Amino acid sequence: VTCITLMTDFGNRDDSAGCCRGVIVGRAPDARLVDITHEIPPFDIRRGALTWINVLPYMPVGIHVGVVDPGVGTARRPIAVRTRRGDVLVGPDNGLLPAAAAALGGVSDAVELADERFMLQPRSNTFHGRDIFAPMAAALATGTPLGDLGPALDPATLVTLALPRPRWDGEALHCAVVYVDNFGNLRLNAGEDVVADWHLHEGDAVGVTLGGHRLSVPFARSFGMVPEGTAALIVDAYWHLMLAINRGHAAATYGVGIDAPVVLRRTGDGAKDAE
Amino acid sequence: VTCITLMTDFGNRDDSAGCCRGVIVGRAPDARLVDITHEIPPFDIRRGALTWINVLPYMPVGIHVGVVDPGVGTARRPIAVRTRRGDVLVGPDNGLLPAAAAALGGVSDAVELADERFMLQPRSNTFHGRDIFAPMAAALATGTPLGDLGPALDPATLVTLALPRPRWDGEALHCAVVYVDNFGNLRLNAGEDVVADWHLHEGDAVGVTLGGHRLSVPFARSFGMVPEGTAALIVDAYWHLMLAINRGHAAATYGVGIDAPVVLRRTGDGAKDAE
Amino acid sequence: VTCITLMTDFGNRDDSAGCCRGVIVGRAPDARLVDITHEIPPFDIRRGALTWINVLPYMPVGIHVGVVDPGVGTARRPIAVRTRRGDVLVGPDNGLLPAAAAALGGVSDAVELADERFMLQPRSNTFHGRDIFAPMAAALATGTPLGDLGPALDPATLVTLALPRPRWDGEALHCAVVYVDNFGNLRLNAGEDVVADWHLHEGDAVGVTLGGHRLSVPFARSFGMVPEGTAALIVDAYWHLMLAINRGHAAATYGVGIDAPVVLRRTGDGAKDAE
Repeated sequence: VTCITLMTDFGNRDDSAGCCRGVIVGRAPDARLVDITHEIPPFDIRRGALTWINVLPYMPVGIHVGVVDPGVGTARRPIAVRTRRGDVLVGPDNGLLPAAAAALGGVSDAVELADERFMLQPRSNTFHGRDIFAPMAAALATGTPLGDLGPALDPATLVTLALPRPRWDGEALHCAVVYVDNFGNLRLNAGEDVVADWHLHEGDAVGVTLGGHRLSVPFARSFGMVPEGTAALIVDAYWHLMLAINRGHAAATYGVGIDAPVVLRRTGDGAKDAE
Repeated sequence: VTCITLMTDFGNRDDSAGCCRGVIVGRAPDARLVDITHEIPPFDIRRGALTWINVLPYMPVGIHVGVVDPGVGTARRPIAVRTRRGDVLVGPDNGLLPAAAAALGGVSDAVELADERFMLQPRSNTFHGRDIFAPMAAALATGTPLGDLGPALDPATLVTLALPRPRWDGEALHCAVVYVDNFGNLRLNAGEDVVADWHLHEGDAVGVTLGGHRLSVPFARSFGMVPEGTAALIVDAYWHLMLAINRGHAAATYGVGIDAPVVLRRTGDGAKDAE
Repeated sequence: VTCITLMTDFGNRDDSAGCCRGVIVGRAPDARLVDITHEIPPFDIRRGALTWINVLPYMPVGIHVGVVDPGVGTARRPIAVRTRRGDVLVGPDNGLLPAAAAALGGVSDAVELADERFMLQPRSNTFHGRDIFAPMAAALATGTPLGDLGPALDPATLVTLALPRPRWDGEALHCAVVYVDNFGNLRLNAGEDVVADWHLHEGDAVGVTLGGHRLSVPFARSFGMVPEGTAALIVDAYWHLMLAINRGHAAATYGVGIDAPVVLRRTGDGAKDAE
């Protein structure tokens, strides 16, 4: 059974997610429909891409519809991209798809979603999730070949998205908060390779500068390895670093949010070991 | 496979939506259960009706459970209404169902949900979504004829809902905000017929009075046809007008919300063309 | 078809719920996946237990995954518990499971989820919902016997949760708000047995002390039995008492929230009848 997943910035309150679900279950009654989330912040293409990068590797190979689409109804192209893993990503050509495809082996081929036979009629200018992306996904799920949906695109022409990268300044790692999760944990764009580079072991101190605060926090395997109310630097479930407070809310405590710069430094005895 | 949809004002945090899903999957294991939304504002029958009017035409013909039910446990009747399209709407007799049925071809017949064999036992007085509407929907999905659920009702006796209509005052259209969507767009109760009546083309100016503001905004095909931060009057995906700000939040910008009066006037050269 | 339900404190915005859904639909493609809620307040094990106690009796017998897990990655055990009704509850050993199992006939047997063959590889220290609980549930749904997932546990060794109980002080019932629902109703831990004990009939007055307020409110069958804006004491759908305001928001009106103490007293003529 083919799986169709949905990720949007529509919110759970509006009519939009329900309309997309309706189009899909009506046109692809045998497909399995799975919501990823509809709470991507409005217009936040980067957050959509990062969510897909985190979630899609855990989804079965399938058809993944992503709608974070501030350019709906303009010249931006509706597209579908096949990944080397075998998925098809469906959505607007605004950078959302290639970033996620990279997490699924990369883009193998792409098409512009142009064939009006697979769109709803009449078609609105403001809701292509319902009128183009959902019915195209249903067409794919019911056996329509990708190439029938429109002309092939050169993947090199797809709009790409610059994801923020950390940088080294001497022995300091300059990174940034890329997400504040439901628990207030500060998710950083620093990868777990720092843990090996710095020979970090449970309890080793790391210097953290953020939001005007200069902290020394222990590296810890998980939240509960430090006392309640205590901060720790932890490898998150996507193998990046996060700053968390056990049973607390780090973002509120430190008064920082997405895009806040964070500087990490190896401190204490471990700093010498690592040299 | 029969589709059962759910729309309620229970919220996603409470136990209620989960209970209704449980009753349905337990009693109708082969039905396809689709959530529309559980974030109808508490008690807001009109918002429930408008959501159904927008979403149900995109759902396959099926059984649609709607629970916005401030009168639960009082003399208000639990009902089911068959539409000319073939759907059955299930919910309280408070205006929710007939308004939506009108969008599906109108009411063909109706019953009072009275047969206790199809209700949960014991039955609460405060949660008929779980105890009456969900099991009745499951009974329908598993082949019970509508007429077995209770006595036929004269559709003319159903409670109806007055949806707010726009009115003309000379050349000005007096309408109202009926919804603020997830992006802050102001959804109006003015239909797209104004576009033809006023011969509006991309970029034509329209005068908009709302919340003490007197604006002149362009008519635009979609959000991204005007610069970021700029307001535009746009036909929404349900063929009504909306006032939107490209990548902005119109409701917050103008300090208005649901039921705010809005006056639209044709202005500029186009106003003469339209005469 | 086996039903797998999900209840977590992940929120609907984060990537976590989508990851769990993906693991389950990928590994148990024929199971029916049903969300209960992902909006348990962060770390609130008690709220998770109460939600399960309310919802699971309305779910078909199946596999129920509950993740409210502040101790993830520490020495707390991942466990699965079979209920006498035939369900298997999957989650952390922090009190969540036994409380809910009691509502399903009690615990019949339990295992520690230890066999790494049924976990994701690599496995994180901070997201056992995805890496242990979801794949273990999928293994059960696809026919793996409970005993294959790890060594049997003595149910008497499971961590238990103390749920707050009301107490009598003379003729006064001292209880507490255990939940504020989506409508602002104050859900109490007082059972409906008080209604029979006090011979309460529609409209009988009950004295309520909460948040510095001393009220006399009628006992009512449902919200709409009292005028709009009026408070009433009502038996809720889980056979406990709640203080509600018809079409109002009791929690905001009285300025109280979860754990607020509430004292109930039989007053008026009925008080004499009850003696």
